[in-house]
Amino acid sequence: MRHGGDLAAGEAAFGRPREGWLDLSTGVNPHAYPVPPFAPERLTRLPEKPEIDELLAVARAAYGWSADIPVAAGPGAQAMIQLLPYLRVRGEVAVLGRTYGEHAYVWARAGHVVREARTLQKAEEAQVVVVVNPDNPTGRTVPPEELAALAETLAARDGLLVVDEAFADVTPEIALGDRVKSRGMVVLRSFGKFYGLAGLRLGFAAGDEEMVTELAGELGPWPVSGPAIAAGRAALADGGWAAGMRVRLVADSMRLDAALARGGFTGLRGCGLFRTGRHERAGAVHRSLAEAGIWCRAFDNRPNQLRFGIPGDDAAFERLESALISAFEQAL
Amino acid sequence: MRHGGDLAAGEAAFGRPREGWLDLSTGVNPHAYPVPPFAPERLTRLPEKPEIDELLAVARAAYGWSADIPVAAGPGAQAMIQLLPYLRVRGEVAVLGRTYGEHAYVWARAGHVVREARTLQKAEEAQVVVVVNPDNPTGRTVPPEELAALAETLAARDGLLVVDEAFADVTPEIALGDRVKSRGMVVLRSFGKFYGLAGLRLGFAAGDEEMVTELAGELGPWPVSGPAIAAGRAALADGGWAAGMRVRLVADSMRLDAALARGGFTGLRGCGLFRTGRHERAGAVHRSLAEAGIWCRAFDNRPNQLRFGIPGDDAAFERLESALISAFEQAL
Repeated sequence: MRHGGDLAAGEAAFGRPREGWLDLSTGVNPHAYPVPPFAPERLTRLPEKPEIDELLAVARAAYGWSADIPVAAGPGAQAMIQLLPYLRVRGEVAVLGRTYGEHAYVWARAGHVVREARTLQKAEEAQVVVVVNPDNPTGRTVPPEELAALAETLAARDGLLVVDEAFADVTPEIALGDRVKSRGMVVLRSFGKFYGLAGLRLGFAAGDEEMVTELAGELGPWPVSGPAIAAGRAALADGGWAAGMRVRLVADSMRLDAALARGGFTGLRGCGLFRTGRHERAGAVHRSLAEAGIWCRAFDNRPNQLRFGIPGDDAAFERLESALISAFEQAL
Repeated sequence: MRHGGDLAAGEAAFGRPREGWLDLSTGVNPHAYPVPPFAPERLTRLPEKPEIDELLAVARAAYGWSADIPVAAGPGAQAMIQLLPYLRVRGEVAVLGRTYGEHAYVWARAGHVVREARTLQKAEEAQVVVVVNPDNPTGRTVPPEELAALAETLAARDGLLVVDEAFADVTPEIALGDRVKSRGMVVLRSFGKFYGLAGLRLGFAAGDEEMVTELAGELGPWPVSGPAIAAGRAALADGGWAAGMRVRLVADSMRLDAALARGGFTGLRGCGLFRTGRHERAGAVHRSLAEAGIWCRAFDNRPNQLRFGIPGDDAAFERLESALISAFEQAL
């Protein structure tokens, strides 16, 4: 499966640009949380259970989950996305919309019957419903109270709602937070995207007691690395940084929208960590930007759309802005 | 399952010792590889496939695997131990000896019928045979040519040999190395133990094409963290450090044996990363050492044995040596 972040593919096709790549192909925040240097024992010692428990407590507080909700940590939300399908007997799985492709892929690979549902109403007859909220790449959001109601319906017949909140940090009001219950729903959070630390591999799952307990069992006694524990505890406890970053990313994404609109993109949507737009000549624009050393995300199944991560500083914005105008002119 | 490294359990039972704990409960090398500081992008960027491929190439060279042998990296050998049972249809699994308990546990949890085999000959009728080589905690070794022959027998009837070489770094002549084949065997290596970097979570699997490919698929597109890739590439390429460390650990383990013998231990065995001994009053010695702030490994199923990791310096050795003598006197 093709993902953002695979700059190597760009380099293979377009060579190494003189000014270096401006990689906008992921939804990872370019303003990384300033991690304090790691104490040597973070690298040398096996992480102990009390350290992981403290990390889980900090995550619970940061994400607004109640104290009695089971939580597990893993080496990235992706690792947990991959395990969930094995923890349910095979059945019908509905994925809302044409979303982040890994969900449908992993459920199908594990033998479930997967279908795409255009609306939540069309999804709710399945045993398992998967919703990415906000959606990647469309930014579509589902109100958390609707998801909570759906989870209750599903729980009543031993179904499961999976909510992937990988991009919910900029709009915490969209996240389930204290609506997460210990039956019938599993919520996934990605640490690396909003905190700009994707290389650390850290993610969380919360909710259904049986599923989260089994997930923790499958992840084993040392599910996350010492550096991930240290960075996660510091960053998730820093509410001031998160509040300031939300404001900054909203401003950044407005500037990005303006640049994309001037470059001929329409229907701009997404979230504070990426913007997706429609362009009649999306393929040509993608190529032209790549030739200028700017790598954005194209989609096999959405040929007229491109997704852009947030440029990291003024210079990066200006480089994108001028390349978008040239690309637009070339594509005409 | 109880593991070494769980100092928290010691602290709960014995309080926090005045001089701090001397943790000898794991088999992790106390002389950690000196990792260069991580470049910031190791933390911020998603690891890319070419970086992982380079890590795999360095691992192949370090472990002596041929260039055509499939290799996968994961967040610790334990993560791969946990996945393997799901990649085989359920059948009979024989684990050689009363070894590291996780193997029997994870195969049984996944629905296989697991039995303990006292000898390799008694194991070979199973569909899957698991051997820890050198064994933890007994240090028992099986000659690699015997394992290679067994793997061939098993491969001929679609069986599988799993060899856990977590503690093979000090005695590379025991490891399968270029005897690893791409059918019928999977070899697991732990990076963190010999390189003293257990907090990083890094391990490798090599061998059977189908199993290793599926394992890589299950571990997903970002199986290891940026810090683990950086440290792994530097350390595994440093053959000089490894050669010197082997000599040092052999000397250290001889000094540890001498100290344990003076403390009344008999039947000392193990490897360069830990020593296991028998003591008539093992329970009393464990308690007495814990009261002196020294935490070693006791086993539920081996009440007369204790396992000790390598003390990290002269002061640690001296502290252990004098505590062992006091413990011996008290236990008499």
